[in-house]
Amino acid sequence: MTIDWVGLDADDTLWHNESYFITSYELFAEIVAPYLAPTDDPYQAAHDLLIATEIRNIPQFGYGIKGATLSMIECALEISHRTIPAEDVWRLVERAKEMMAHPVELLDGALDALDALACHRLMLVTKGDVMDQRRKIEHSGIAERFDAIEIVHEKDPQTYAAALDRHGVDPRRFVMVGNSLRSDIHPVLALGGWGIHVPYETTWAIEHAEAPEDHPRFRVARSITEAAELIAGSGSIAAAAD
Amino acid sequence: MTIDWVGLDADDTLWHNESYFITSYELFAEIVAPYLAPTDDPYQAAHDLLIATEIRNIPQFGYGIKGATLSMIECALEISHRTIPAEDVWRLVERAKEMMAHPVELLDGALDALDALACHRLMLVTKGDVMDQRRKIEHSGIAERFDAIEIVHEKDPQTYAAALDRHGVDPRRFVMVGNSLRSDIHPVLALGGWGIHVPYETTWAIEHAEAPEDHPRFRVARSITEAAELIAGSGSIAAAAD
Repeated sequence: MTIDWVGLDADDTLWHNESYFITSYELFAEIVAPYLAPTDDPYQAAHDLLIATEIRNIPQFGYGIKGATLSMIECALEISHRTIPAEDVWRLVERAKEMMAHPVELLDGALDALDALACHRLMLVTKGDVMDQRRKIEHSGIAERFDAIEIVHEKDPQTYAAALDRHGVDPRRFVMVGNSLRSDIHPVLALGGWGIHVPYETTWAIEHAEAPEDHPRFRVARSITEAAELIAGSGSIAAAAD
Repeated sequence: MTIDWVGLDADDTLWHNESYFITSYELFAEIVAPYLAPTDDPYQAAHDLLIATEIRNIPQFGYGIKGATLSMIECALEISHRTIPAEDVWRLVERAKEMMAHPVELLDGALDALDALACHRLMLVTKGDVMDQRRKIEHSGIAERFDAIEIVHEKDPQTYAAALDRHGVDPRRFVMVGNSLRSDIHPVLALGGWGIHVPYETTWAIEHAEAPEDHPRFRVARSITEAAELIAGSGSIAAAAD
């Protein structure tokens, strides 16, 4: 058994994303701070309320900048008992537009890792606003390195199974590389595939999940470079898969 | 030459969509009316300002309910010189959630038309919020009738060419059926394909375009039923294509 296809997450695996959201969260915390009870950490308090709103709204708004912005506006209205100045709503909308235009900055080592994986077939698997993801894929300059690009609404076993099926991929010969245990690793392991977790410097609270214990097809890498080594060369996946 | 693949638009071609947006536009007009100069038609005045905002924001927000809602909020803030009550912003956000849960109501004749086209390969081609489109596709109950489903960020010749290429479709043997001349017909004709325009009762202002004049691969149908007849049977496409 060998690995034919390598799936790669994009946000916070190939390019920076969460770091831009943190700037938005800081703006949100600044706007709602006057309405919060005095606390040691107003940023954390605001963040916790926002995450609860985002989780509640995922069935309607899904993932991405537009849904996150609508959740910020709704949460600010709730916290302020609908007294927030229109000017602050304006700042959140304008911030959304800035987010939609933020530069696409590849992680260190991402290009070299793609080079190292060039003898495999590569699938980009990402979720979020379809237009924003398309923009980032185009601006990243790496679109032509992929044999398949899948923008999905949710990364669960069902959507992975459908994506693999579309391209005739045997899950047992597929490894997914990504920063989210919840979205990139668990669903692929559940299908019989392999998973390599490459933690990012920060993880969106909604993406937190436990790492699998002693799973035979699960690996952790410290960087995208190390993930590529695990797959391509003398690393443990290649060894275990032989 | 025969037609192998039939592309079908979804919103306002297979199921109702614009009618739900009209309810949102009415709410928007009600909210901004107090800030507008007296006019014979406050709904039309509000609508014109909103469409201008939506067009300006398409590069950032794309298509769909979330982007439309952010544009409504921004436009209401502009019209009111940022004095709009928070309560009205709340109503727009809540309306977005209702939109994201609206029932999927197939157009009359849609199911029979799909039956009539069952001997062709069928591709659903739609744009908008990926999560909302997925939801509607699932709730429509017709997903399994399609050989391919493409949710794209813009319906231009480039995205059609990529979608046809993914499924190995020759554009000269592909006909697209849809209610938007701009999104469903012109780009496909430009690629050498066929187009059948089935006007809906209303058209979103942004989708307006001129009909092609005397184009050999362009047809107009009064209903989805008539479009299916044109393709399947003794209609003019089959005749012209033989």
